[in-house]
Amino acid sequence: MGGRWRDGGGPARPLPDATTGETVALLPSTGPDPAAALAYARDVGGPALRALTFTQRAAILKALARHLAAQLDDLVALSTRTGATRRDTAVDVDGGIGTLAVYAGKGARELPDATVLLDGDAEPLGKGGTFAGQHVYTSRLGAAVQVNAFNFPVWGMLEKLAPAFLAGMPSVVKPASQTAYLTERVVRHIVESGLLPDGALSLWCAGPGGLLDTLTAQDTLSFTGSAATAFALRTHPVVAGRSVRFNAEADSLNCAILGPDVRAGDPEFTLYVDQLVTEMTVKAGQKCTAIRRAFVPAALAESVTDAVAARLAATVVGDPGRPDTLVGPLASLAQRDEVRAAAGRLARVAKLAFGDPDRVDVSGADAVRGAFLSPLLLRCDDADAAAPHEVEAFGPVCTLLPYSDVDGVVAAAARGGGSLAGSIVTHDPDVARRLVAGLASGHGRLLVLDRDDAAESTGHGIAMPQLLHGGPGRAGGGEELGGLRAVRHHMHRTAVQGHPDFLRSLAAT
Amino acid sequence: MGGRWRDGGGPARPLPDATTGETVALLPSTGPDPAAALAYARDVGGPALRALTFTQRAAILKALARHLAAQLDDLVALSTRTGATRRDTAVDVDGGIGTLAVYAGKGARELPDATVLLDGDAEPLGKGGTFAGQHVYTSRLGAAVQVNAFNFPVWGMLEKLAPAFLAGMPSVVKPASQTAYLTERVVRHIVESGLLPDGALSLWCAGPGGLLDTLTAQDTLSFTGSAATAFALRTHPVVAGRSVRFNAEADSLNCAILGPDVRAGDPEFTLYVDQLVTEMTVKAGQKCTAIRRAFVPAALAESVTDAVAARLAATVVGDPGRPDTLVGPLASLAQRDEVRAAAGRLARVAKLAFGDPDRVDVSGADAVRGAFLSPLLLRCDDADAAAPHEVEAFGPVCTLLPYSDVDGVVAAAARGGGSLAGSIVTHDPDVARRLVAGLASGHGRLLVLDRDDAAESTGHGIAMPQLLHGGPGRAGGGEELGGLRAVRHHMHRTAVQGHPDFLRSLAAT
Repeated sequence: MGGRWRDGGGPARPLPDATTGETVALLPSTGPDPAAALAYARDVGGPALRALTFTQRAAILKALARHLAAQLDDLVALSTRTGATRRDTAVDVDGGIGTLAVYAGKGARELPDATVLLDGDAEPLGKGGTFAGQHVYTSRLGAAVQVNAFNFPVWGMLEKLAPAFLAGMPSVVKPASQTAYLTERVVRHIVESGLLPDGALSLWCAGPGGLLDTLTAQDTLSFTGSAATAFALRTHPVVAGRSVRFNAEADSLNCAILGPDVRAGDPEFTLYVDQLVTEMTVKAGQKCTAIRRAFVPAALAESVTDAVAARLAATVVGDPGRPDTLVGPLASLAQRDEVRAAAGRLARVAKLAFGDPDRVDVSGADAVRGAFLSPLLLRCDDADAAAPHEVEAFGPVCTLLPYSDVDGVVAAAARGGGSLAGSIVTHDPDVARRLVAGLASGHGRLLVLDRDDAAESTGHGIAMPQLLHGGPGRAGGGEELGGLRAVRHHMHRTAVQGHPDFLRSLAAT
Repeated sequence: MGGRWRDGGGPARPLPDATTGETVALLPSTGPDPAAALAYARDVGGPALRALTFTQRAAILKALARHLAAQLDDLVALSTRTGATRRDTAVDVDGGIGTLAVYAGKGARELPDATVLLDGDAEPLGKGGTFAGQHVYTSRLGAAVQVNAFNFPVWGMLEKLAPAFLAGMPSVVKPASQTAYLTERVVRHIVESGLLPDGALSLWCAGPGGLLDTLTAQDTLSFTGSAATAFALRTHPVVAGRSVRFNAEADSLNCAILGPDVRAGDPEFTLYVDQLVTEMTVKAGQKCTAIRRAFVPAALAESVTDAVAARLAATVVGDPGRPDTLVGPLASLAQRDEVRAAAGRLARVAKLAFGDPDRVDVSGADAVRGAFLSPLLLRCDDADAAAPHEVEAFGPVCTLLPYSDVDGVVAAAARGGGSLAGSIVTHDPDVARRLVAGLASGHGRLLVLDRDDAAESTGHGIAMPQLLHGGPGRAGGGEELGGLRAVRHHMHRTAVQGHPDFLRSLAAT
């Protein structure tokens, strides 16, 4: 912050290793001076970034991705302390660096060697050809404040930093407490690289106090986390009062639908089961895109339940540093308590088909000190029950819901109130089209999976940098990523009216 | 509402003729059942609209524009009672119908004969060519609730209705109290035309009570009006809690800058003065885009002041029904009181260069019963004064502010905290480019005016349907119009992943 490392203040909070409970780092409760940190980003970082063209910014991101890739071993080792297996770390660390690289590539190929982005063609506004309008995107003159979630300490930072950087906005990153030490390590590597202009990246490892109070309409605020915090940020007097551009990506009750055309022996049956097990176990289910509601045709409910349970029974839960471990601990004991409580609410209307919330066999680690939890598959046959559509257990927990027909499952899916991601597993394109039409307005992303695209599918839970991430309603109502869409979200769009000759000259600026 | 005309309840409020004070209509304070009105729009209007293709919706808008154009005499007569001269009515009524026509044309030419809109090209996500992503826009399944301002009872409704209709969303229109009777008349004509599907348009002439309480993430809320009301709507527990898509267009302190290159004899000098007088007098200055801050080079402050004052001295204020009247009354006596109070705050740091807030010669009308106000030009030589950048007098009021150089005027303009529209009047393209670069991120629209485009210029204050309307910060942080951009704002964007063959088939839906 402000061009150098500074000490926070107030009582320090110990951040425990998710597996052993040992303290990894201490987090201060207050930061030194939020107004000064924001002013430095705006006044030093902003002008330096805006002096670079899109092409130049993309080249820096490319070099940064390479630099971080060279630090992978160090980051993987520290990531393990958050409870991440190597497979989990691949999503967060490798995935974060990959996102930087994709943005670098898109910036180099799809953006001009200039600082202004044209939006659409000129609109003629007079028959004589002397007057027209041209929409342009220019850099906002503020800072991009980014409040991230604990489950993606690396990807969460880099997926927001990359588009903000390309857009010419300095980033002010506030990681979540539990895993802030891993974000801090990445920032140290970035600073050591010397690649970013001074002020282009600030890190705020402390409570959020004061960080929003001096925001202006030229700043942006991006948030990933709970709906409750999203509400508090959205209605903050400064954020709402100054129309600060706000983007939220909140947890949601994502669904996966097995098509009514699928039979037990079909490849789509196996694809559905495989994907469900993956989504329940990767990052111990701590992904905002994870499948929470598994809709299956009533006739297949029994066989899907059995197949998933068999796969989960063979899953090793334990020390995330061991190569045979599939499910590491949750990020903290407090997090495990929350998930247990949510699973308990689900269990009032659903029966447990696999796992025990209070017991798990742990391999190579201490089940008392570590935040371990068994994968839990529930099955709810009560079509009127509300909990499966409203209670999110942010861990390796999923509820299987039998359905009878396409219209019924579309209506049931909508009860989630808006989701980040949904899967449709079918080999019938008509079924797929009907489900896409029914689900689209409630989802940020939909995956249509079958035997023809499965080999290359990136999977239900992975937010690809090329595609939008975010969803309506419960999912926060925002949009991130989506290739250059996120770059444009960080810029300001203006309609410029004038003589066509003048408007043409804007492209060169 | 709900497919028929219904009575409101509670104490009725008389809506007076702005010129004579006679009661034109009575407005109920409560509506019959807001939840039922919204449900009817969603459940009857929504499916009917979504069953039509963009091309079919555009054809209906075209017929509707023609039908309303045939009712022009009736609407012009009633518009006069809001205080509008024929010139003012041209902006509101003719302008509103013209906006419908532009959207009809754009829908017919630029949208497919389908119900889904593709966004960008497919993004390959695998080297084998079996997996890709495609962004699509689909219709939201809710209602578009539109809360409008008193100053544009016709245009304000039609500029929101047209893009919502093309997007496949039913509109629920809540006009502002003072001029709701004119909106009601337009809706009667629309209903009589029989052109719109049942439920596609609902009208709520009453207080807003209850209208927001049942909104969902599939609905949208668009607002035009004061910053205070925008804040209340944005932070409403249902709007913020369910991530209802919210768009605000609020009053702002728009600027017009006379370039440092201009000399008193130049055509640009005259263009600047002409435009300033127009913006001060059209609709008696009751336009959220009107020029409130006139920045002029210090050396020209005297001559611009004199030229504007001379033009204002020749302006007839009075009965809006008379053809020689240039300035009618404000919309209500309460409105005049507010403008006088704001002008009083400005007069503490600025001196009156033309007009008297408490006295005006009125032609052909009663200065006591009508809400008449003299055009007021103030001049502020105190560069540190805050009021000219913060106090909006929503009437025929403008403050002239001398400046010394381009960087200085860019910084001064930014003190407005975000504006809908700004003008740059210069014949030097380098000056224009520097000012556009400096002003763009604080503006929704910028007009570059000179001798070469003036003949076809649509003017500082006119929100063209082809171009974005809205602005950052104080202006509400929203975007309306902008051609098809507003249609897309009313739709939901989803990333669909699957086999490229399947993704291609989505375009035909």
